Parts: sequence; structure tokens; C-alpha cells
Amino acid sequence: MRYSRALTAVSVVLGAVFIRAQNTDRVSAVRDAAIGGTARNILLFIGDGMGDAEITLARYYAVGAAGRLALDTLPMTGAYTTYAVEEHDPSLPNYVPDSASTGTAWATGHKTSNGRISTSARDDRDLPTILEIAQQRGYLTGDVTTAELTDATPAVLAAHVARRACQGPADMAACPQDRKSAGGPGSIAEQEIAHNVDVLMGGGAARFEQAMKDGRTPIQNAAKNGYEVIRDAAGLERAKRGRKLLGLFAKGNMTTEWSGEEARPYPSNVGSPQRCTEDHRPAGEPALAQMTTTALALLDRPGAGPGFFLQVEGASIDKQDHVADPCGQIGETIAFDRAIKIGIDYAKAHPGTLLVVTADHAHTSQIVGRATETDHPTGSISELLTIDRAPLTVSYGTNLYHRSQDHTGTQLRIAAMGPQAAGVVGVIDQTDLFQLMLRALEPRR
Amino acid sequence: MRYSRALTAVSVVLGAVFIRAQNTDRVSAVRDAAIGGTARNILLFIGDGMGDAEITLARYYAVGAAGRLALDTLPMTGAYTTYAVEEHDPSLPNYVPDSASTGTAWATGHKTSNGRISTSARDDRDLPTILEIAQQRGYLTGDVTTAELTDATPAVLAAHVARRACQGPADMAACPQDRKSAGGPGSIAEQEIAHNVDVLMGGGAARFEQAMKDGRTPIQNAAKNGYEVIRDAAGLERAKRGRKLLGLFAKGNMTTEWSGEEARPYPSNVGSPQRCTEDHRPAGEPALAQMTTTALALLDRPGAGPGFFLQVEGASIDKQDHVADPCGQIGETIAFDRAIKIGIDYAKAHPGTLLVVTADHAHTSQIVGRATETDHPTGSISELLTIDRAPLTVSYGTNLYHRSQDHTGTQLRIAAMGPQAAGVVGVIDQTDLFQLMLRALEPRR
Repeated sequence: MRYSRALTAVSVVLGAVFIRAQNTDRVSAVRDAAIGGTARNILLFIGDGMGDAEITLARYYAVGAAGRLALDTLPMTGAYTTYAVEEHDPSLPNYVPDSASTGTAWATGHKTSNGRISTSARDDRDLPTILEIAQQRGYLTGDVTTAELTDATPAVLAAHVARRACQGPADMAACPQDRKSAGGPGSIAEQEIAHNVDVLMGGGAARFEQAMKDGRTPIQNAAKNGYEVIRDAAGLERAKRGRKLLGLFAKGNMTTEWSGEEARPYPSNVGSPQRCTEDHRPAGEPALAQMTTTALALLDRPGAGPGFFLQVEGASIDKQDHVADPCGQIGETIAFDRAIKIGIDYAKAHPGTLLVVTADHAHTSQIVGRATETDHPTGSISELLTIDRAPLTVSYGTNLYHRSQDHTGTQLRIAAMGPQAAGVVGVIDQTDLFQLMLRALEPRR
Repeated sequence: MRYSRALTAVSVVLGAVFIRAQNTDRVSAVRDAAIGGTARNILLFIGDGMGDAEITLARYYAVGAAGRLALDTLPMTGAYTTYAVEEHDPSLPNYVPDSASTGTAWATGHKTSNGRISTSARDDRDLPTILEIAQQRGYLTGDVTTAELTDATPAVLAAHVARRACQGPADMAACPQDRKSAGGPGSIAEQEIAHNVDVLMGGGAARFEQAMKDGRTPIQNAAKNGYEVIRDAAGLERAKRGRKLLGLFAKGNMTTEWSGEEARPYPSNVGSPQRCTEDHRPAGEPALAQMTTTALALLDRPGAGPGFFLQVEGASIDKQDHVADPCGQIGETIAFDRAIKIGIDYAKAHPGTLLVVTADHAHTSQIVGRATETDHPTGSISELLTIDRAPLTVSYGTNLYHRSQDHTGTQLRIAAMGPQAAGVVGVIDQTDLFQLMLRALEPRR
């Protein structure tokens, strides 16, 4: 009963929200989009480091001040807090989190300390993840990223280690208790394979090529365990429904889509705004949108279970923010938005899909006024020429020039459509996203 | 019909949103809060410079990481864009707006260039404001701020000048065409009095004491035009329903509520986090919450018209951001939130009230990690000790030390309750807030 009502409501929404939201009266569109019940599928899009500043910057540069990204069109919107806790005293907040503690928050519903992957602060307990719960309930699962597959955001779904650095079998120095030789579950790469996630795609091939104690590699284990292992975009053609897929498209992180000049201390390029180069990605590496399309094709298997859970990460928004590269950052945001567009189109065509778009933590970039000799930001800046043919100055000042720019603690946008999506409206915490997804996964009545 | 339906829905909301929003399933709370129809009253709260960073900072410092401000509790939330346009070519965006262009956007529904007060870019047309339209429809009106009453945000409702600097009769150098001697409407102070706004409260007495051409002052004009003129908090007792009120509580801007150490370049106070001093406001100056209470008492006159429109500005969040004073900034945000709490309590008790909380433009402050010798922000920083007894570092880096910190162009949070409140959900533009309020003002059917 609840499910069919949700289906009806979504059908109304298809003809309502995405058209009426453009009209003057959006009240009934919001009311119609506020549907409960359980979800056939959950599509979770995480823009790493994608705060409101990063969203605004990408929108203004690429589609203009009055333009709208795909992620702007979602019918339910709110904000969530991202703070971590301290390892030495988990009752104390740490206001500036990293991708490990924040990922653990939505993956498990628990706050932890920076650096931890789905383990609790101080007492190092394994925390059950939303992907594990989905698997227990028969859902197919997927985990897709542009970073290394063993990086924090993909790792939190299908691994439990004390330190995020413990990515491959040879990287276990920081996690002695997690070593297989100590009776632990092994590195993140080993655990991801052991978790039998149906679709794993991203970079980080080198982690999966490290030798385990028995001389074998995680990649060999994957093949033995029934994974189709592919190494480039052409390999996507070999992916087939019913067979697990491990796609490793780069040794480390995947290449950014766009490139340009780094931001530099004043005067930088003031007066000569740059346009970004948009063909930076090697042909062998698929775009995130292409990976998303493949993941959906593999996971959309009516009859194979109640549905699927898929996380898609736009990882290098964060990484390009860290290195103060505005074109790299914007290009990754736009590539992420293209993947979101694929997801929204899927959700429109498949009622009962809960789709969430959010980020893990805020970041450094700011849109500022034109810099002058007497008045300019203290950090690194770059002028961009936007699609509006207007100059836009971006500033990076949370760390010194050529040091890694810092995350920030600002609350983040969270947006959604589908069953339970209305739970993102207002101000919630990152751990509430776990609860929201858990409600959507509840067994149907 | 539409109105009574709205009333019923609001009554349901009173028992629903503010309690159920704390519960796990928020879907029906959102659905119930999505009501249309017209509003008896409109309460518009503007936090000047209050971006998501400023909100998060005030929340974490004053009520803790897991705490909630009054402004966090509103049932409908979204984001809006704030860009201005260029004076020389209004088809070009200016991505970093000021309080004049942004105020004009929600007050009139039109984009203009920075510095303009409800006049159009380049061709300098007067743009009808939401306050003027409300007056025409019989609504009582109020305009309350902690800045000078002639500052940009209060000015946009009840004045039309080419430059925001034209605040008093002696300040007209930048607006020759607006001078009364040139057939114009005169300074902002003169126009605000001439507009017969029922409740005017704020700072800026000196502007109203400047001599006009006939030797009289705007303050004398006000008294002659039936205003009760008060000059301090004690004077609020003389305010009475049915008589217009002009409250001028300071020569310039009103005093900030809190004080503390300014942010300084590294090492600043790293390792010695400060607590703010909370009793900085002189006894003669009322708190914004007290001004809001008085304004509501004066404007809530059933029978005197369809209802009222009231704008309340927390002005010095912006001003303390500009001078990199974190305690001043947080104190103004908290004082603003106390005023919002008064408004929310009023709206809960008076169904049919549309209440909106938002800001005009984003600003400079950022919450960053602990600064060290090798890794620290390039700008000015200060460590605070929050209510959680945890250190929090705030950074100001959009301009050089002891220069005015810059606004930023990030989209802003907008939140609301009451009729048409659901129109804030999603991503809208600042000019859409005008349309939203206009819908709420529509004559009842």
C-alpha cells in the first residue's frame, strides 16, 4: 500500500516538479514530491569537498549566473552539519572533518574521528554500513569514484580500518590490528573485494596489485571470486549483467577532466582572465557519467532482488581545491553534475528511486571581487572568464601557497528526490542521512 | 476558500513540523507545511552577510555542534543566488554583490548594479518595492535594523536613489538627480519619512538631523507628520498602536552586542582560544529582539487592514565580518537569531504569517583546522573556545590585514514557514523572493 502510493506520487512528480518548479507557484510541487515509503533503489551522489561555494563557482563558470546545473533541479533541499569527533575524547567535536569521518557518518550513522574508515573513535569497533545492510536485505550494490577505489569515500561503504592510509596490502603500517596476520580483515582493497560489491569502479589499480601475504594480489582474488576485471574505458563493453565488475582505470586517482592555470598570490592573472581547457582526460579513462551509466545498467536487474544501492563520488573537486586549481575543480564539478544528470534521468524513469546529492565537507574556494593593488585576498587567486563573458575571481586562502588548502567546517547543501527525500529539508546532521537511507531500505509491508 | 485552507494547514503544522521535525520521519511534516494561499502578515528577516559559514560558526560557538539555532528550525529550506549586474551593461553579471543591489533584488524583483537603491542599472528608473505594494494594498509596514536606518538594506524598501551613499540631506553629492532641488525625491532619510512607514527603528540619527534646504531636518518632518520619535530603549514604552514610530537609537550604527579580540595574521592567539564578552551593548540601546517585539505589537492590529509587512535586519554580521572581529560577528548573529525566535513564536501563534529568514550576500569568514607554523591560513585568524569546550579556528582572508574583508559570491540559505514558504525549496534567485512575497500579498479571493 505504501509502496504503490509512493509510485503514484512519483508519477505525478514526473509531470510536476521538474516543470512546475520553473513556474511561479512551487508549493504544490513540493507537497507532491514529499513522499514516504520504501525505495526500490538508492542513488547516493557525493561531491567530495563540494560546498555551496564550489557549486556556485561551477554554475557561474559553466552555465552562467542565471543557469542551472542538474544538481540544482532536485525538488527537496536542506543543509547538514559535518563535524567529526576527537579520537582521544569522542564527546568533543572536531569542527573541520575529513572524508573518512564524514563518510563514516552517512555510511554508518555514527560520528568518528578524522582518518577512521567505518570504525568507532577510540575503541575501534567496526560499524555496520548502509551498503552491508542493503546487501543483507538482498539489494545489489555499487561503489563508483574518480579517486582511488581505496580512498576514504568509497572505502567507508565496504571496509573497516583504523586509518584511511591502509589502502592496500603493503600499506598497513598504521593499522597493525587490521592486518590479516593479526586476525583482522586486511587492507581496504582486500575488504572491498571480500565484500562482493557488485560494481566497483574507479582508480587505484596500484593498491590492488600489491602482494598479500600469500603472494597473491587483491586483483587476482577478485578474478578468482568471479569479478570481471577491466582496466580501461573500452573494457566497459565487457561488463555484463549478472557478473560482478571491478573497473580500475588508473594506477592512482583518475585524471581530471579540465585543466588550466593554478591560482597564485596577487597579482596572479588579474586583468587576463583564463578559460579552462576541457579535454584533459585520457581516452582510456571513462567519464564519471559513463561509469554511472554502466553501473546503472548492471544494477538495474528486476527480479534479482528488491533493488540496488549505488554510491557515485565526484572525488577530485576536493583534490583540485587542495591544490588551488580552479579549472581542475570546476571541471570535476561539471563532470560530477553530468553523472548526476544520468542519475536523475534514471530516477525519473524508475519511480521508487531515492536519489541524494550532497558532499562530505566544505572546502576552501571563495568567489571574491576583482583584486587590486590595495585590496586583494591574502591567498592564491585566479581570474576566470565565465560563459557569461564576465570575469570571476576565485580565492584560495586556507593555507600558504603550494601547501595543501584546508577543508572548512561550513554546513553543506543536501538535495534529494524520491521516497524519503523530504527528510533532507531543514537542518540535519550527516548521520541523519544514514537514518534516511535506512528508512528507505525498510522491508516493504 | 484558499485562505481558510491555509489556516487549517498552518494549525496542523503548529502541532506537526516543530515537533515531528525532531522525529525520524519528516516527510509528512514537509508535506503539511507546504501550504499556499495568501498571508495575513509577512515577516522578512535579513541577516546581512549571513552566509552558511556565518550561520555554522555562530551555531557551533553558541549552542554547540549538535545544537540548533531558532533559524535552523524553519520547515522549508533552499538556496538562492545573489549576483548583481554591471552598471555599464546590465546584461553582464557581477558575481560579488553588495547590500544595495541584493536588497533591490528582493525588494523589487529586479537585478541592479552595486550601490543602487531600488533604481535600475544604467537608466536609473525607480523600481516599485514590496513595501510600497503592501502599503497600496492596505497593509501596515515596518522596517527595523541594527544599522543606520538609511543603510542599504532598510533603504531599499522605502527609497529610490542612484547611490547608497545618499543617506541624509547633506549626503547628496553622488545623486544630483535625486536632490529635491532637481525635482528628485531627496535623500534616503527624507524618503523613508515621506513613505509613512508605520514602524521605523534602527541607528543613524545623525542622518535624520542633517538640515534640508528649508533648514528643517527629517526628524522634524517626522514629528510633524505624526511620528512618535524616540531615542533610546526607554522610549519604547511610549510607542503605541495607531501612531507611527521612528526609533533612532544611535548616531550611526547601533553598538554590537558582543566583543572580543580581532583576528590577526598567524600566530594570532593559536593555543589560547578566546571566549567572547557578551555585554557590550549600552543600556540605552534596545536589542534587536526587543525592537522586533515592539514592532510586532504595533503592527499586529486586526481590523486596521489586511495585515502587515515587516523587515528586520541583523545588519552588523556583515560589518563585523568586514573588520574580522569573530566575537562581534557571532554576537550579532545570535542577537539576530533571538529576534527570529520572537518572529517564529509570533508566526506560530498567528497562522497565516509568512516568515522568511535569509541573507543578502555571503561573506568572508571560514571555519578552518588548527593553524600550525607550516600550515595556516594566509589571512587573519582567531581561535575561539566554543560552548562544547572545543577550539574552533576562524579565518578571514579575502583582503589584507586591517583592510575591509570582501563579500563573497556563494549562494545563500533561504528558509521559511507559512503560506508560500515552500517556494524557497530548491535553487531560486534573490529576485524570486520578491515574487514569492508578492504571491503571498495577493488580494484574497
